[in-house]
Amino acid sequence: MKNIKLAHGNGGEENNELINKVFYKAFENEILTKAEDAAVLDNGRLAFSTDSFTVSPIFFSGGDIGKLSICGTCNDLAMMGAQPKYLSCGVIIEEGFRVEELEKIVASMKKELEKNGAIIVSGDTKVVPKGSVDQIFINTTGIGYIQKENISSNNISSDDVILVSNSIGKHGAAIFANREGIELSSDLESDCASLWPVVEELIKNDIKITALRDATRGGVAAVLNEWAKQSNICIEVTEADTPVCEEVNGICELLGFEAFNLANEGTFVAAIAKEDAAKAIEILHQLDLSKEAAIIAKVSDRYLEKVIINSEYGTSRFLDMPTGELLPRIC
Amino acid sequence: MKNIKLAHGNGGEENNELINKVFYKAFENEILTKAEDAAVLDNGRLAFSTDSFTVSPIFFSGGDIGKLSICGTCNDLAMMGAQPKYLSCGVIIEEGFRVEELEKIVASMKKELEKNGAIIVSGDTKVVPKGSVDQIFINTTGIGYIQKENISSNNISSDDVILVSNSIGKHGAAIFANREGIELSSDLESDCASLWPVVEELIKNDIKITALRDATRGGVAAVLNEWAKQSNICIEVTEADTPVCEEVNGICELLGFEAFNLANEGTFVAAIAKEDAAKAIEILHQLDLSKEAAIIAKVSDRYLEKVIINSEYGTSRFLDMPTGELLPRIC
Repeated sequence: MKNIKLAHGNGGEENNELINKVFYKAFENEILTKAEDAAVLDNGRLAFSTDSFTVSPIFFSGGDIGKLSICGTCNDLAMMGAQPKYLSCGVIIEEGFRVEELEKIVASMKKELEKNGAIIVSGDTKVVPKGSVDQIFINTTGIGYIQKENISSNNISSDDVILVSNSIGKHGAAIFANREGIELSSDLESDCASLWPVVEELIKNDIKITALRDATRGGVAAVLNEWAKQSNICIEVTEADTPVCEEVNGICELLGFEAFNLANEGTFVAAIAKEDAAKAIEILHQLDLSKEAAIIAKVSDRYLEKVIINSEYGTSRFLDMPTGELLPRIC
Repeated sequence: MKNIKLAHGNGGEENNELINKVFYKAFENEILTKAEDAAVLDNGRLAFSTDSFTVSPIFFSGGDIGKLSICGTCNDLAMMGAQPKYLSCGVIIEEGFRVEELEKIVASMKKELEKNGAIIVSGDTKVVPKGSVDQIFINTTGIGYIQKENISSNNISSDDVILVSNSIGKHGAAIFANREGIELSSDLESDCASLWPVVEELIKNDIKITALRDATRGGVAAVLNEWAKQSNICIEVTEADTPVCEEVNGICELLGFEAFNLANEGTFVAAIAKEDAAKAIEILHQLDLSKEAAIIAKVSDRYLEKVIINSEYGTSRFLDMPTGELLPRIC
């Protein structure tokens, strides 16, 4: 590891290597070590999470960098059972960027903040000379108030089932299609959305949530592999039960991708206590953002720390942690 | 205002225009409106502040982008009387960046965190293709616990005097010299430093602090002009009392800069109750980072909302809010 490669930002294997060898090594502390989508502070009262957004193109089907920057950080808080409340916003703009586009981005941010009931309380604006940044990068960092404690991917067991809140891979497929100018007769859109209202509904209904994670960079494959390791379990996915829309399937076949590896920006994976699974799905199906929620996997001890996909034809294969370049600037 | 210009990031007039017309307009809320260096949250208990760092060169005399990224955010918290505690760190790295340099930057961050007694609890790493960002940009966002409430630039009066904690303009001058390859026989270094230990000493000694601000982009001139407006006062600076080191004076003369407009990264401006001013200076002179602290101005009603510089020759002139490009990528 002499030079940083695109793969070091893939949300998969190489990304973890960089984070562990450079950042965690230097910054090690108990809170950081325990942090999942967000750090837990102030005696379990607050969640805190940061994310930088470098997506290209900055306007895409289903959203833009502004909407994404609010969804991304608010969703990280929501995944810790926290209601997003206070956000900061650091914007780095390339000289010459159009003010009209900036206003559109800011309007998207405002709209998405309202969906979360959150506000921007601190900002920073930097302008850099032409060529020093590609258009605009945004960092958002958020503080949320934890409404349900002890959501953690360390405690998943065979008493849980695994579900996804929606059909998978749409953000990655949409960005790829937009970037490459692939014209699809269909209306494939990124799933980019704020998930707190969905999580809040599960909490209000006392659903026993063991773990939650939004499946961004690295997709569902990265989440399941991390969970299998952290909880020392085997996760067995039933391929036929996993919702993938026709357009995403089309792009995957065209380009040799796997929907499980594609990024999502408004779809989470949840480990839910078996006895509450049917009720959880019922609640999710009543909400627009999770109409296609489905139980996709069970927990077993077949191969510990591994994820297996069982196909409809009775065959099985491992689903590994994503590696390689995948799609840079996906978020 | 059709396109973003470098001047929109100068920490001065145009920067304020962009922030007011685009960001504040959309994000307006009471906490954001009241925020100075940091927002005050959770019933006055927490301070919260974000800053992105794009400095060029990334290694400079007296520091590097890592050190700067910790000092900058921790200092913003300290300026609200808050002890820096939890930081997030979002890093955007250009493909091909040397891991060895990244490790140096991270080591600087670690060292500076320790001086503040703060820790990194949340991180994000993005890698973007060559040419999409110039080397490395870092965002840090911090939470601090407020130790002294009601520090605010809205309440400065003729009962206060204005002091600077050190000689001014060193960061701006050092970056400019480094960037332009100006070889100085002297050892001009950026003042980049963590100010919480200095502020803590003032608080411990019960110094009546009315306002505090670190004089970063836009320099002391920007701080004094903002304060004159916010408190509806006139600030009269005694030029001869203002500490400027020989090297900074040299660069200013060479290039037609004004030390008051140059950025500082480890020097603050304070409004202190008159009766405590001598004691404050005595405390500051005992600390390495504020050995050259000096009272530089009084508050009057000569020209409300204006800053005046009185020279040793008995002449006076206005010191305006900085405008124009100044130095891009200074922080």
